[in-house]
Amino acid sequence: MQKKNEAICSQKENFAQWYTDVCKKAELMDYSSLKGFIIYRPYGYAIWENIKNYADQKFKETGHQNVYMPMLIPSSLLQKEKDHVEGFAPECAVVTKGGEEKLEDPLVIRPTSETLFCEHYSKIVNSYRDLPKLYNQWCSVVRWEKTTRPFLRGSEFLWQEGHTIHETEKEAREETLKMLSIYVDIAKNVLALPVVTGRKSEKEKFSGAEETYTLEALMPDGKVLQSGTSHYFGQGFAKAFDVKFLDRDNHWQYVYQTSWGISTRLIGAVIMVHGDDNGLVLPPNVAPIQTILIPIKQEEDTIKEKVMEIQKNLQEKGIRTKIDFSLKSPGWKFSEAEMRGIPLRIELGPKDLEKGTCVLVKRNDHQKLEIKIEEIPSKVEEILKQMQEEMYEKAKQKLEERMVTVDTIEDLSKELDKGGFIEAPWCGDLACEMKVKEQYQATTRCITEHSFENKKCVCCGKDAT
Amino acid sequence: MQKKNEAICSQKENFAQWYTDVCKKAELMDYSSLKGFIIYRPYGYAIWENIKNYADQKFKETGHQNVYMPMLIPSSLLQKEKDHVEGFAPECAVVTKGGEEKLEDPLVIRPTSETLFCEHYSKIVNSYRDLPKLYNQWCSVVRWEKTTRPFLRGSEFLWQEGHTIHETEKEAREETLKMLSIYVDIAKNVLALPVVTGRKSEKEKFSGAEETYTLEALMPDGKVLQSGTSHYFGQGFAKAFDVKFLDRDNHWQYVYQTSWGISTRLIGAVIMVHGDDNGLVLPPNVAPIQTILIPIKQEEDTIKEKVMEIQKNLQEKGIRTKIDFSLKSPGWKFSEAEMRGIPLRIELGPKDLEKGTCVLVKRNDHQKLEIKIEEIPSKVEEILKQMQEEMYEKAKQKLEERMVTVDTIEDLSKELDKGGFIEAPWCGDLACEMKVKEQYQATTRCITEHSFENKKCVCCGKDAT
Repeated sequence: MQKKNEAICSQKENFAQWYTDVCKKAELMDYSSLKGFIIYRPYGYAIWENIKNYADQKFKETGHQNVYMPMLIPSSLLQKEKDHVEGFAPECAVVTKGGEEKLEDPLVIRPTSETLFCEHYSKIVNSYRDLPKLYNQWCSVVRWEKTTRPFLRGSEFLWQEGHTIHETEKEAREETLKMLSIYVDIAKNVLALPVVTGRKSEKEKFSGAEETYTLEALMPDGKVLQSGTSHYFGQGFAKAFDVKFLDRDNHWQYVYQTSWGISTRLIGAVIMVHGDDNGLVLPPNVAPIQTILIPIKQEEDTIKEKVMEIQKNLQEKGIRTKIDFSLKSPGWKFSEAEMRGIPLRIELGPKDLEKGTCVLVKRNDHQKLEIKIEEIPSKVEEILKQMQEEMYEKAKQKLEERMVTVDTIEDLSKELDKGGFIEAPWCGDLACEMKVKEQYQATTRCITEHSFENKKCVCCGKDAT
Repeated sequence: MQKKNEAICSQKENFAQWYTDVCKKAELMDYSSLKGFIIYRPYGYAIWENIKNYADQKFKETGHQNVYMPMLIPSSLLQKEKDHVEGFAPECAVVTKGGEEKLEDPLVIRPTSETLFCEHYSKIVNSYRDLPKLYNQWCSVVRWEKTTRPFLRGSEFLWQEGHTIHETEKEAREETLKMLSIYVDIAKNVLALPVVTGRKSEKEKFSGAEETYTLEALMPDGKVLQSGTSHYFGQGFAKAFDVKFLDRDNHWQYVYQTSWGISTRLIGAVIMVHGDDNGLVLPPNVAPIQTILIPIKQEEDTIKEKVMEIQKNLQEKGIRTKIDFSLKSPGWKFSEAEMRGIPLRIELGPKDLEKGTCVLVKRNDHQKLEIKIEEIPSKVEEILKQMQEEMYEKAKQKLEERMVTVDTIEDLSKELDKGGFIEAPWCGDLACEMKVKEQYQATTRCITEHSFENKKCVCCGKDAT
């Protein structure tokens, strides 16, 4: 058992406080003077860059192109789709003055950009030959929030928003699910994050969407975090914005549309799911520094030269490596490397050098390994790969342990105290959804593919759907 | 001589119209319904991504780290540095409402982020051991503009802003010049853009800076375009924002600061400097598509298979390659590829296939080359490299032709009609600068390193400085 790092609160004592402590102490972020607007410090931003680079490559491999739309939306434009504006109006930041003059049509800082994409699509699409358009945008959006938490809920956050239009319903529905599966891939292969996927209920879906699919991840406090969404819009926006095309039979048709997004909230998920009382624990694929070399007696030239040689060999393998040559004690350096969640620590001192070995310490399970110096590059590569899998498997096991299926409202109530996912049969009525939410403080996260044949709604007793 | 593309205005007829035509026809951008806020379409945004990727790598190689600051600045914070707020106040977009409530302290959408960086630095810097901080941010900024042109001047534009703080004046001054030289490198090696560098006059420097260095590029209409700036701030902002550290002698000192930026205006520069009456001409290093394969008789399987094989071979060499399999005629495809400025076009038809050769057409000088199919990958790589140099050299020659030195106000007046850079001795007084600007509509672009010993100011006759 590792000794707890005293600089941060323990998870058991106060999970929310532990989370904030880690965000600050690992130097992921800082608060600005404006509530809900955080500063992404280099280490936190580098995590986002790693998520972004992987996702961007996947998007491009599947034929998507990046664009950039204006950050401001005329309020008259935002009002064109009724459900959409109703959903977002209460969260808008409004520009009323530009260049010292009062604006006639106030401008809203984008809370999301469906309206801008639609307006543009209506101008550039004429024929089925122009379809599909598979656009994506990396940017920040503003949604005024009363209660904010670093990465998890902010008034400004970084994200990507994909917006696609298609000739047929089938193609648009396929796109919606394809992007959901790419998000599952990112969650697993970058963040070592297992998720539950499914459809949102009518009440919980995106403003203006016909269907919203979601990724839901389980946090150690038993709460569930929405970690990405993919929406199928049907022709709703297309009709509101007149996005039409001449089809193969020379008839005008409205396009079928999707949108999908993941945000810096994923950083929050990774902190909570993998972190421990010593700080952050980063999966190797998302870690800005994958391996840190800590020399013991760094004042000795042989040690200094050897760690620099090791760093070079690791970097040549494409492994993100740093040496800690600061004047702090080795113990202090270990602690700092742990706080920052660096997956592998390599210690090298005079005795190790004599033996031709070094000590590797894995951040995820504190396991110590003695390995030969010449084997470092290949072993480290192998261990990092294995750690990514271990972390995913461990998180998956925890998720499965806290995922139960119930048949009655009594069982639902009992399980709720423990936290986690509860699968329950439901008739699909809003009344039942609201009743369960009010009486038991349980929200519907998603509708899974699980078959509930012959089961009855836990609330009203009607057939489950 | 190539036949002019009829879809766009000719440069001679109306250069400004030609520019706008190319922006639209090459599908680089579109207008949104909000004046001064453009849409970066996939092809235009991909150019920016290529600039960004190269620059970001250079910044990281020189020890810089990316961060992300809030997009909104409380107006009280913006007002802390007097010169700075005076310079930017007339251009601000102001948020006065958030989440349906009126804000007490209105928020300004960042026109630039010095104030935010300073506030953050004042919180995280304590000792000389914390220095330097070499931060950079990729984002968009808003500056309300009355007259706007795509990429060249907009109310919102994409850019990077570096903000660094240092222990000593010497180090900060070195950083200012180092970043200027990285910009010269980007201009040359990505954009094939020769520039003149120098210091801005007191009147033209950045609001709040002690010194502003600039990159100035010459456009074909004789006008000069500011294409990047690097500022040395001294301790001005540090004093206004209380950014202090304990130095090596345990005394409190203010940090020395720099900032530097390049923007999507560089896209405008590349369009103007290299473009011709057939459209865009992109240097290979910035081109989203470097080589386009145009099959003649694509319905024949042997042709289809061969172009796909060629594409695969080129892509394996890391060359960005596309095949145009659309149903348009080859002539139409050639024209489109020219409009989009794709550096190399490869034509392959049944007769070529028989001979085992294909036709290469260089976009920059319309030169046609017949080469053996099996030599394509290596030849194309070589030709693209050579084209980047040719384009730079051609632009450099034009710049040098239009760069003259004058000794008298009469000569200055004569040269002004021709457009271009004019080097003239100047005493350094604002009065002379203003007089020349008013009488001759000539602005001081930058103070070069050229020696003007024993020369007299063209305006007042005092010694030049």
